[in-house]
Amino acid sequence: MVGLGGLYFYFGGDPDTARAIEGFGMGASCVALFSRVGGGIYTKSADVGADLVGKVEAGIPEDDPRNPGVIADNVGDNVGDVAGMGSDIFESYCGAMIASIAIAATIDNTGMMALPLALASLGLLASILGIIIVRVFSKADPGTALRTGTIGSAILFIIAAYFLIQMILTENAVNTWLAVLAGAVGGVIIGLITEYYTGSKPVEKIAKSGETGPATVMITGLSVGMQSVVLPILVLATIILVSTSLVGLYGVGIAAVGMLATVGITMAIDAYGPVADNAGGIAEMSGMGSETREITDSLDELGNSTAAIGKGFAIGAAALAALAIIAAFVETVAHNRGSFELLLSDPRVLVGMFIGISIPFLISSITMTAVGDAAFDMINEIRRQFREIPGLLEGNAEPDTAKCVDIATSAALKRMLLPGVIAVSAPAVVGFGLGPESLGGMLGGGLIGCVSMALMMANAGGAWDNAKKFIEKGNLGGKGTDTHSAAVVGDTVGDPFKDTSGPSMNILINVMAIVSLVISPLL
Amino acid sequence: MVGLGGLYFYFGGDPDTARAIEGFGMGASCVALFSRVGGGIYTKSADVGADLVGKVEAGIPEDDPRNPGVIADNVGDNVGDVAGMGSDIFESYCGAMIASIAIAATIDNTGMMALPLALASLGLLASILGIIIVRVFSKADPGTALRTGTIGSAILFIIAAYFLIQMILTENAVNTWLAVLAGAVGGVIIGLITEYYTGSKPVEKIAKSGETGPATVMITGLSVGMQSVVLPILVLATIILVSTSLVGLYGVGIAAVGMLATVGITMAIDAYGPVADNAGGIAEMSGMGSETREITDSLDELGNSTAAIGKGFAIGAAALAALAIIAAFVETVAHNRGSFELLLSDPRVLVGMFIGISIPFLISSITMTAVGDAAFDMINEIRRQFREIPGLLEGNAEPDTAKCVDIATSAALKRMLLPGVIAVSAPAVVGFGLGPESLGGMLGGGLIGCVSMALMMANAGGAWDNAKKFIEKGNLGGKGTDTHSAAVVGDTVGDPFKDTSGPSMNILINVMAIVSLVISPLL
Repeated sequence: MVGLGGLYFYFGGDPDTARAIEGFGMGASCVALFSRVGGGIYTKSADVGADLVGKVEAGIPEDDPRNPGVIADNVGDNVGDVAGMGSDIFESYCGAMIASIAIAATIDNTGMMALPLALASLGLLASILGIIIVRVFSKADPGTALRTGTIGSAILFIIAAYFLIQMILTENAVNTWLAVLAGAVGGVIIGLITEYYTGSKPVEKIAKSGETGPATVMITGLSVGMQSVVLPILVLATIILVSTSLVGLYGVGIAAVGMLATVGITMAIDAYGPVADNAGGIAEMSGMGSETREITDSLDELGNSTAAIGKGFAIGAAALAALAIIAAFVETVAHNRGSFELLLSDPRVLVGMFIGISIPFLISSITMTAVGDAAFDMINEIRRQFREIPGLLEGNAEPDTAKCVDIATSAALKRMLLPGVIAVSAPAVVGFGLGPESLGGMLGGGLIGCVSMALMMANAGGAWDNAKKFIEKGNLGGKGTDTHSAAVVGDTVGDPFKDTSGPSMNILINVMAIVSLVISPLL
Repeated sequence: MVGLGGLYFYFGGDPDTARAIEGFGMGASCVALFSRVGGGIYTKSADVGADLVGKVEAGIPEDDPRNPGVIADNVGDNVGDVAGMGSDIFESYCGAMIASIAIAATIDNTGMMALPLALASLGLLASILGIIIVRVFSKADPGTALRTGTIGSAILFIIAAYFLIQMILTENAVNTWLAVLAGAVGGVIIGLITEYYTGSKPVEKIAKSGETGPATVMITGLSVGMQSVVLPILVLATIILVSTSLVGLYGVGIAAVGMLATVGITMAIDAYGPVADNAGGIAEMSGMGSETREITDSLDELGNSTAAIGKGFAIGAAALAALAIIAAFVETVAHNRGSFELLLSDPRVLVGMFIGISIPFLISSITMTAVGDAAFDMINEIRRQFREIPGLLEGNAEPDTAKCVDIATSAALKRMLLPGVIAVSAPAVVGFGLGPESLGGMLGGGLIGCVSMALMMANAGGAWDNAKKFIEKGNLGGKGTDTHSAAVVGDTVGDPFKDTSGPSMNILINVMAIVSLVISPLL
């Protein structure tokens, strides 16, 4: 916010220098790429490695201090869920504002250029008020407190935004406000749909299918994940239709800003999940006893629900932000070339679309394999320590936790290179090789592919995770039954789905879009 | 062929009555919908049901005559693989020819209108010659014979097509021939890529991952499936780029005709798989002993490989055919409205694309659930028969096989209704509700979504199936090990992937495209 505000103050008055802001967005995207993709590989390799050797092979409880991988696992929760999610949303936020400013710049309207930043500042204030609300209500049920705070700050923002927009814009003020409203409301609805698919009925159905073995858990979970794509995409389509019919393509950008405005409180709540999870880990490691662990477990459950809402929200925001950047890309190319059209019946556009849809599949495949390979290294190291450090399992010796952190870090950095290179180079290769028409098509195909794959993987993964938790609470026979081990298989497949490959999709489309925008004057 | 030729003879001379031919295509699509979706549900519910109760619960071998579900299982192989595949390719074939004729009709070129049918007749002759080649070589290794026949007939067709096109077309003859060549060669390459991903290294990798349990089998298989999307899509993109740059959008249609021309021999070889499989079933049921079974098993293996190539081929052909129909749709709407453009930056088109991409996910989800539910009914019926018919397991009583066939049939018909209704009604709802721009966008999004999902599911399913077979041949410990049971989980998930949901995608996009073409004059 401060960075973008400063840049805008410095360059933003003149539409021609708005390009400096695009550079800022590309920086944000690269950080997000590191945090989200690298973080995703880090957190899951540590998680899978520590759990598999610790819980399954050595038979010690989760988060036991004797396990050398436990520190890497807990660090991973922060790297993946807090830093990863934060940079993901930060990237979408920057993307939405940059795209809105860029579109406003092409029609030379300074009021419209200033509005995204003004709305963002307002949203920040509303978030701070929301956090105060959470503190006031915190004596009550933690779930209610978090919900009241989120909804409260959203309502405050919407009301205040009405007056702010009236002040800044000379025309189309009400329509612009309605676009902001569509974005904010749409974001909440997508979050609630995500909560439905990763909770309640679909989860119980997956858990129930565990009675006939792991294969049916997989089929049901994949089927739930695929089904969960439909409604959020229809909500996104509605937001696009409403916001563009009100204020044109600028509407998509401003709707994304509206969706992301109260992001302060969403991220604070999202950070809640890993904090609760780590609190549980620390309680276990310091031997605080089962009562403390029960409290932290119940907090952890709430954390999973807020994380699911946050993920749905992040996907919706990333989609709108990417779409706004793509619109800015089309405007910029058209501005420089005189005429530029992306006709779906143009073979160059079609070819681009085919290339675009294949990229999310390729990146998902690479990141999923990366988790498997990194976890394998981690497993070997933990096994080695259990074997070679005398007295480790008896609790008489210290594990070499630093070594495990090191393995996870270097594996994550090494294996995020290829997806990163593909994301950054694909727009350049297609743009310079096949032309801007194919690049535009690629962004279109990539956008719808990334959004649907992100939704499918995040929701299937979340649903599998919660199906396992549902059984662990004592339903359908509880822990130790065949039904439970079938659900564990689902959860293990779901981990890279929801924490590595799925979130990578948000970054992927935004990186591709912003790289395209940056290279657009050269095409 | 005869049907289409007759219609063309009757109506085709006059471009305005070409619409009667479109009706024929819609009929072909509806038949394909029944055979492929219904057949897919039929074959897999019977397969899963018979195997689960027979092999796992009752402990009797596969295809044992005491199992009441065995007849339904063997019938299912024909329904799904022969009738389903046949009608799938027939639909693409009709689609490609109809679209080529429709595009040629808009520019009023009778030579171009007649060419698709002429090429198809030529392809039929080449196929018959190919089958003769197979018979000549059949003394040698059956794999070599099949391969020589396929490649031989393709080469014969390509050479003869050159002279045929020179005779029919007055201009652009060489370019048109090159488009046909691009389609024919591209189809073979896609088939070979499919063979790679469902054989050799990827399969061994999946089998190897079985050593660490079913979860890693799932992750590796999904990752292989996702990766396998990339190359065939790039081949498709190349075919589109080459053929359109040579002869415009007509090129896509004629390339699809070229790809499908030698379909006679492909389908004959594809039918080989189920025939070999059923031969094994009959050998087992009639108690012919293990030697006969070994021969049929080795034939069955070859059948799986030809089926995989056939599936890759079917997906590529369906994609090109659908694209050609979509192009014909755009031309028809433009023809009637004076001006009609599908701009990717038009929000209506974008909204259509988002709706389009969600449909393959929805249909995949529905068909996967349908298999699970239908298999559940089948399992209960087989269990009931084992329980209630005295002396059945001892071989002293006849099982009520008709009842099982009946259950599979009615389940398939009942559960294919919803996907069928969605496929037929979606274009009408979007077309009349949001306009032809959104419908065009929906077809574009649906096309790339269907192609990528079809490739992912078909190849992941095929790879899982062969990974299981690889272990059963004695690798990695062979049957009865934990590695084998992990691979069985993969195969069970892969069954609805490769035989129900995956192939449904081909039909889905063609049905949506042809319905759009038929309603296009009303928009």
